[in-house]
Amino acid sequence: MTKLKWGMIGGGEGSQIGPAHRLGALADSRFDFVAGALDHRPEIGREYATRLGIAADRAYGGWEEMLEGERNRDDRIDLVTVATPNSTHFEITKAFLQAGFNVLCEKPMTMTVEEGEEIVRIARETGKICAVNYCYSAYPMVRQARAMVRNGEIGKVRLVVTNFSHGHHGDATDADNPRVRWRYDPAMAGVSGQFADCGIHALHMASFIADDQVERLSADFASTIPSRELEDDAMVNFRMEGGTVGRLWTSSVAIGRQHGFDIQIFGETGGLRWASEQPNQLIHTPVGGRTQIIEKGEGGLHADAQRLSRVAIAHPEGFPLAVANIYCDLADAIAGHDRDGLPLAADGVRSMAAVHAAVASAKRQGEWVEARPSIFR
Amino acid sequence: MTKLKWGMIGGGEGSQIGPAHRLGALADSRFDFVAGALDHRPEIGREYATRLGIAADRAYGGWEEMLEGERNRDDRIDLVTVATPNSTHFEITKAFLQAGFNVLCEKPMTMTVEEGEEIVRIARETGKICAVNYCYSAYPMVRQARAMVRNGEIGKVRLVVTNFSHGHHGDATDADNPRVRWRYDPAMAGVSGQFADCGIHALHMASFIADDQVERLSADFASTIPSRELEDDAMVNFRMEGGTVGRLWTSSVAIGRQHGFDIQIFGETGGLRWASEQPNQLIHTPVGGRTQIIEKGEGGLHADAQRLSRVAIAHPEGFPLAVANIYCDLADAIAGHDRDGLPLAADGVRSMAAVHAAVASAKRQGEWVEARPSIFR
Amino acid sequence: MTKLKWGMIGGGEGSQIGPAHRLGALADSRFDFVAGALDHRPEIGREYATRLGIAADRAYGGWEEMLEGERNRDDRIDLVTVATPNSTHFEITKAFLQAGFNVLCEKPMTMTVEEGEEIVRIARETGKICAVNYCYSAYPMVRQARAMVRNGEIGKVRLVVTNFSHGHHGDATDADNPRVRWRYDPAMAGVSGQFADCGIHALHMASFIADDQVERLSADFASTIPSRELEDDAMVNFRMEGGTVGRLWTSSVAIGRQHGFDIQIFGETGGLRWASEQPNQLIHTPVGGRTQIIEKGEGGLHADAQRLSRVAIAHPEGFPLAVANIYCDLADAIAGHDRDGLPLAADGVRSMAAVHAAVASAKRQGEWVEARPSIFR
Amino acid sequence: MTKLKWGMIGGGEGSQIGPAHRLGALADSRFDFVAGALDHRPEIGREYATRLGIAADRAYGGWEEMLEGERNRDDRIDLVTVATPNSTHFEITKAFLQAGFNVLCEKPMTMTVEEGEEIVRIARETGKICAVNYCYSAYPMVRQARAMVRNGEIGKVRLVVTNFSHGHHGDATDADNPRVRWRYDPAMAGVSGQFADCGIHALHMASFIADDQVERLSADFASTIPSRELEDDAMVNFRMEGGTVGRLWTSSVAIGRQHGFDIQIFGETGGLRWASEQPNQLIHTPVGGRTQIIEKGEGGLHADAQRLSRVAIAHPEGFPLAVANIYCDLADAIAGHDRDGLPLAADGVRSMAAVHAAVASAKRQGEWVEARPSIFR
Repeated sequence: MTKLKWGMIGGGEGSQIGPAHRLGALADSRFDFVAGALDHRPEIGREYATRLGIAADRAYGGWEEMLEGERNRDDRIDLVTVATPNSTHFEITKAFLQAGFNVLCEKPMTMTVEEGEEIVRIARETGKICAVNYCYSAYPMVRQARAMVRNGEIGKVRLVVTNFSHGHHGDATDADNPRVRWRYDPAMAGVSGQFADCGIHALHMASFIADDQVERLSADFASTIPSRELEDDAMVNFRMEGGTVGRLWTSSVAIGRQHGFDIQIFGETGGLRWASEQPNQLIHTPVGGRTQIIEKGEGGLHADAQRLSRVAIAHPEGFPLAVANIYCDLADAIAGHDRDGLPLAADGVRSMAAVHAAVASAKRQGEWVEARPSIFR
Repeated sequence: MTKLKWGMIGGGEGSQIGPAHRLGALADSRFDFVAGALDHRPEIGREYATRLGIAADRAYGGWEEMLEGERNRDDRIDLVTVATPNSTHFEITKAFLQAGFNVLCEKPMTMTVEEGEEIVRIARETGKICAVNYCYSAYPMVRQARAMVRNGEIGKVRLVVTNFSHGHHGDATDADNPRVRWRYDPAMAGVSGQFADCGIHALHMASFIADDQVERLSADFASTIPSRELEDDAMVNFRMEGGTVGRLWTSSVAIGRQHGFDIQIFGETGGLRWASEQPNQLIHTPVGGRTQIIEKGEGGLHADAQRLSRVAIAHPEGFPLAVANIYCDLADAIAGHDRDGLPLAADGVRSMAAVHAAVASAKRQGEWVEARPSIFR
Repeated sequence: MTKLKWGMIGGGEGSQIGPAHRLGALADSRFDFVAGALDHRPEIGREYATRLGIAADRAYGGWEEMLEGERNRDDRIDLVTVATPNSTHFEITKAFLQAGFNVLCEKPMTMTVEEGEEIVRIARETGKICAVNYCYSAYPMVRQARAMVRNGEIGKVRLVVTNFSHGHHGDATDADNPRVRWRYDPAMAGVSGQFADCGIHALHMASFIADDQVERLSADFASTIPSRELEDDAMVNFRMEGGTVGRLWTSSVAIGRQHGFDIQIFGETGGLRWASEQPNQLIHTPVGGRTQIIEKGEGGLHADAQRLSRVAIAHPEGFPLAVANIYCDLADAIAGHDRDGLPLAADGVRSMAAVHAAVASAKRQGEWVEARPSIFR
Repeated sequence: MTKLKWGMIGGGEGSQIGPAHRLGALADSRFDFVAGALDHRPEIGREYATRLGIAADRAYGGWEEMLEGERNRDDRIDLVTVATPNSTHFEITKAFLQAGFNVLCEKPMTMTVEEGEEIVRIARETGKICAVNYCYSAYPMVRQARAMVRNGEIGKVRLVVTNFSHGHHGDATDADNPRVRWRYDPAMAGVSGQFADCGIHALHMASFIADDQVERLSADFASTIPSRELEDDAMVNFRMEGGTVGRLWTSSVAIGRQHGFDIQIFGETGGLRWASEQPNQLIHTPVGGRTQIIEKGEGGLHADAQRLSRVAIAHPEGFPLAVANIYCDLADAIAGHDRDGLPLAADGVRSMAAVHAAVASAKRQGEWVEARPSIFR
């Protein structure tokens, strides 16, 4: 198969996100890395891109320069990844979509709901793909869970319970460290801290597996380290359009949890459980029956789960390959295959609406508020 | 040491609670089982008591008869356990306390806060012990957790997160089974279903380990099986008097969780985690350090944890011995030792106040309400 | 039901084994503790027995005195537990059996195969029960495993793999501590160290679940702490009479394993796995199917597993209640019920034959040797 | 950095090993895939190579053609991977080494010890790298374990216990399936079945972490499915040059174990444990202390472990990235960096010597035999 051409904005030297995207995009040999504006400092970005093997004329000094350069080429990139600071996602994504490029945007896609709705409209109008990197949803066993729910294997979903909690910001003596501090400062992080950072992954996952959308929610935010203006711990109760009850806890002060992202889905005839630290297993209990372990790579998995496994049963596949799965889906989608598991701009704007709803609810002592963007009501 | 004399009310043949209490009371040879009114049917109760080795004159036909019989004996019982249906706990406990007996009451201690406050007052006035069977708090590793918190080993507690969830009432086709149905029927269960049944164990545990009291709370209740009038799933956010944030989820429709009672306590300098299905380990992570496993029976445990272990490290001890630990503490307390881990009437009335607060909050869409009984405000 | 009368030899104040047996014997109210010779120092033993509630005339100063005292009473004990130092087991057990008492002997039952064979003969002749305390086999989930094998649920057993490894003797600086040292000193421990201490539990378990007997074996012994004359680590390969292949590893220098006793049984149509640190679960994988978790207390267990569970599913039951299960089986067996799970003198002598076979094999560089006592060939 | 040029022999369409190597080689953008002889059917191989993006003149019809083509180019490949059927490894590896290429050979490197010794000599003489794909040793936490041992963090190693057991060949009704059958047929698999297939990974790991070499061994082989000529289950006891005791169990009939490869290393002052199904954790217990969990990506890891982690703590990395780590090490080694963790021809020949030793020992009822190739005695 012919490889697609890929470019990246952001992800400069020393960032963690850059290597993750390069590994994800290149692991399966579906893309060639041919263009980049990797740093906000033009010379440094150009030099780094060159070192990574990008031709000099496609090693750009900034995203505007890249947009100009690429739009006029016959061999223009098929996909651009936007991995810049959060507040710039909207502007860059919008510009590339409007110029006819497919985009993979890091989360959060935008800072406001209105911006998000605009991206959705532009993607619709241009017919281009705007994906958002909710990469946890691309683990094979998460796809298996979604397929089982759709297939009725646990009956109508009653309840979803999800957590995304870690303790990496739990050290108050480290709270002023700039790498930590910006997340709790509204000037840099926006309206929400931990919920916007990690909670929206869990909320997306709930919708993704339950195959339903969050309708309204009630939130309780806390800044357990008092110097923080934004929350470092949040509980969100929600209801989905189909009536499902939801519970979501997220924290960055849960010392001892390294990456405690898990989800439980309870239906009329069974329950499922998945945890990001053991991503290759899915736990299934039929009502009245015994708990069973479903393994990545075993025979008889649903198609999407099978397609996204690379190596044999019980050979673990991890986070970088979940990102790679997003790129696989993108390559297929660009080639015209329906990849309905791929998270898109609609997911991005729903997250943003949920963030603003949670902030509003928390301010009003947990009052229940509408959680959907107006275009999806 | 001389054995104490023990009697039981309720716990008749075929009940699960009767054997659990007998095993708990007798396992360590601290009590002799000498009196009982074991069934609401007088003859059946007398006959069963006799079969269990109780002398004919102390095999009573009912609790009033037992009260009369025992109060006039020189060798009267030192402790009576009340293991009757919930709605009768108050009356029986009150009567025995007033007659000068020590009582161990099953949970819930009463049905209303006012009744609970009355029990507290009577216990104070008579100087007798009124314990409530929050037996999970008597596991050695729970005592270790409490001692570590008191000792400052995780710093000031910021956050407590606890779950008590199972799926044993998750089968809608079984919902009319009388053994299940009564729990969700206000005529029999009172104002609350799952929260009153399991949630209060978790709430007591939160207070017990954090060594602090719940001050106010906000609740979200759901009847995920629609025929149920009372909730089968509940989320309760709370704040403790010392400022600690609390999160409590309880469910009876969480298919696949057998007995999912766990608690996480996060402080300024560390986190702790304990789960009732692996009760002999306590997981500890110092801030910035590695997660460690503390084992029941290891060297250097806090005194209370050490005292309540019976066999060597890694020989598991289970639920029946946690009940036995309550009886050990009671035997010691009756003998005049200070056993501050023993759950008392104050704990019972606090639970009842929390149940009524949660019901009120859930009715008012999660409004925050005072959760303390008036005598403890 | 009438309680049986029970006495104990050994298990004096400060021992661990005494409380474990008292808890086991008394937990289910099947026995009254009426006689004891608890210490090799007569006065101390009598005084301690009295303190434990034994009448003065049955608080004996030694086992011979107890034998004389009890044999002449009308209300003589129904069962005596022998929990004295290993080298005395044979003599005491033999004497009580010959006098017509039922005996529960701690392991190892004897020091030589010949002594063991003599005990088997005496038990046969007198018709009395001689049980040996292989208490791990009395966990409900171990009984479930055995019943599943007998019921053909994993097909013909091909392979058994078992480990009993801990690290509590792994500290060379503590090797001269008398509590540790005697186990590796032939003058006190006999011909074998770790294999005789822990390995025989695993070997008994293999026979118990596979429902077959060890026929021959090959052993590799090591003293990883060089000052030890006897082995602190051993590997034993074996073959059972039915052709099953066996592998057994036991160690006391496996630092980090607290009580690593587990067993895996692989048959033609499935595999089973059980571990003593999570004794309430049994893991089952049908060939070509998914791994399932069988829980103590769930519906549909085999009769023996169901009978020996006390509390509901997922309420853990631990080691002391496994000992109690041995006493339950003994009480039933004394009452004339067939309790074929109860470990008997035949098991005790088979263990001794295996110990001597392993020692001989290890000396001869792993040569395969017959492992059965001559009476069972 | 400049990318290196990479070619592959074998790994044609539909194989599992081909994608694993391509992912491994390309994931980190250290190599360009520029040449290949991917299939034993010339046209099919050329066509597939072209489809994978290889230029027509480097899409070869066979390994001899590739050798001729590449040796005469100025831009010849820097590394060739040999992923052909086992019996051809020796011939191809030898030819490429002699022509001055660096080689990564799949295991087993050769079929005989003599061939292996020849490869070692040729690699020495030519100064080229001959690596063998013992990829499990490239997991970051395995490197951490090795570094801890070298650094004395668990003291002198006393004991290594390792298992590599699965149940994927446990179905006798599937035993004649050609994909399974060849492994137990000497005509195709050589002298050993399961030990040569999986056991040598475990044996290499033991040497790798303990930083010592196997000196002699004793083996017990079994064909638990009787139609098999070669073993499907094996136990190997061994001794290392430094005196360490070793135990290795490997099985393909362990139904329920999916990929049960784990290792425990016990030293004078601590124990370590690692399992391939949870590869991102290393369990460490200091003697007399508490068990601790070391996490991939945490602060303060040894250099090699840190270098080979790609994403943050608790984001799992799996098997394909362990293969990628081998390629990272190779890229560095080709560039002249010392990468002493890289498994080389010496490791390959040691494995082969151990396989032949185990076969000989098993035939002689477990007699202890020398396990080293003669060049390393």
